Amino acid sequence: MNEFPKKIAIIGVGLIGGSIAMGLKKHLGTKIKIIGSCSSFKRSQKSKDMGIIDETIDSTFPLPLNTQLIIIATPIKTIISTLQQISKYSLKKCLVMDVGSTKHAIISEAQKIFPKSITFIGTHPMAGSELSGFENADPNLFRNKPWIVCSKNIKTVSKLIEILGAKMILMNSKRHDKLTSWASHLNLVSSSILINTIGKQKNWTEIAKIASTGFRDTSRLASSNIEMKKDIILTNKDNIIWSLVQFQKEIEIFINLLKNNNSYHISNYLLNAKTTRDSWIENNFS
Amino acid sequence: MNEFPKKIAIIGVGLIGGSIAMGLKKHLGTKIKIIGSCSSFKRSQKSKDMGIIDETIDSTFPLPLNTQLIIIATPIKTIISTLQQISKYSLKKCLVMDVGSTKHAIISEAQKIFPKSITFIGTHPMAGSELSGFENADPNLFRNKPWIVCSKNIKTVSKLIEILGAKMILMNSKRHDKLTSWASHLNLVSSSILINTIGKQKNWTEIAKIASTGFRDTSRLASSNIEMKKDIILTNKDNIIWSLVQFQKEIEIFINLLKNNNSYHISNYLLNAKTTRDSWIENNFS
Repeated sequence: MNEFPKKIAIIGVGLIGGSIAMGLKKHLGTKIKIIGSCSSFKRSQKSKDMGIIDETIDSTFPLPLNTQLIIIATPIKTIISTLQQISKYSLKKCLVMDVGSTKHAIISEAQKIFPKSITFIGTHPMAGSELSGFENADPNLFRNKPWIVCSKNIKTVSKLIEILGAKMILMNSKRHDKLTSWASHLNLVSSSILINTIGKQKNWTEIAKIASTGFRDTSRLASSNIEMKKDIILTNKDNIIWSLVQFQKEIEIFINLLKNNNSYHISNYLLNAKTTRDSWIENNFS
Repeated sequence: MNEFPKKIAIIGVGLIGGSIAMGLKKHLGTKIKIIGSCSSFKRSQKSKDMGIIDETIDSTFPLPLNTQLIIIATPIKTIISTLQQISKYSLKKCLVMDVGSTKHAIISEAQKIFPKSITFIGTHPMAGSELSGFENADPNLFRNKPWIVCSKNIKTVSKLIEILGAKMILMNSKRHDKLTSWASHLNLVSSSILINTIGKQKNWTEIAKIASTGFRDTSRLASSNIEMKKDIILTNKDNIIWSLVQFQKEIEIFINLLKNNNSYHISNYLLNAKTTRDSWIENNFS
């Protein structure tokens, strides 16, 4: 573990940033020192009081010059403004990584503004929760989950992912944004759209009384952080629109199946979905 | 508890029927005797061996003449054919209830065929799981969950619901089918449609590798029992088509928001969904 950074800064100690801090501390203990900032000084102080980070820093910087690794775990727009701030300070041989949910906008900005002394690695851990904040952080959040990395020279980052128990997957940023629009963003937005469809019905009060666990799970992502979601949408808009249009077309296919009232075709349609999902679960959660 | 039936038959000892049996036994112990049938004799025998029911019966009947309460917990089409079979036997003063997920088709059939000696109560517990079978049954499955009842003269049924810890809600069968198309069936079918949209992408193998917990939860209902779902769809088709068309329109509204690229409106849209869902969770799961 000689080569792993000892001075680590986490900008945005929320659910993801807090879980990274806790996971690293769980495995490396006092070998590392984590400084961090939250959305407010009061929150930063609380995360320190809870032992998630060792020292608070001001999110308007400057960072200690001996910081070896900076992890940016804020919503995407703030990741981009943080990159711009970091580029103004002359940190010696620093590694900067982010954990934002879209990658092309972030990596393009880093390539444009960073001097050669700073290495930037764009990454995206495929883990989360509808709950926000370091109060919900979990050192095991990333265990056995995919963690996408979109850059080269990834020795330290791959070590970090290994320590947190995640599975590293390499791909370029455009491919990342395309694939995650299907694997993640479509689920994220369709959940909000479904809730708004149902919530605007004039019988919503009565519907709400009888809705149960199925409704709870299908709509879970609608409760997740708004700012995080909005930034994902604005930085991956074209892919998300494309996936929503395909979803609309698929709904049309299903409506036509219902109109034709063919029990055999309806069963086949449902079976196809069940088989796809069951074998995915089998490969990923068993 | 003097008035509660002592001889109970459960036709369809699966997830729901098995959970009812376990819940009743948990609270009433040896005061009741439960006879039951599964999809096959072998399965019935296994549910007896596991102690979920006391005796197996043949699903082709006849039932012991002293049976006081028959609970039908099969998929809907089988509920209807079971009602037809029961109507042929002269049971003395028997109470028959079902727990199917649509109510109008079932209750209409019962009203048409049952003699006056048999009281039929159509009910629908709003609880479930993507897992099927009595192996996944849980005596606490119904605790604090809504249980809709669409009939009158409900003394025994309301006692049963109380024993199982659920919350009884009364409404007529047409209203039930309308409200559940929003509260439950739209979630059920949209989950399968979403999976089929994503599963048919040519990059599905790569998408599957990076999909994670959000995808798992949004798609959970796609893994639920096919026959159960198909019967729901065929007996509540018009309401489900209507709700799917409204969902398509809502997707169109959201796509237009994205095309207009207005960060404020997108945030408001997401906030509206979050507020609706968070206050629903607050009222139902806190």
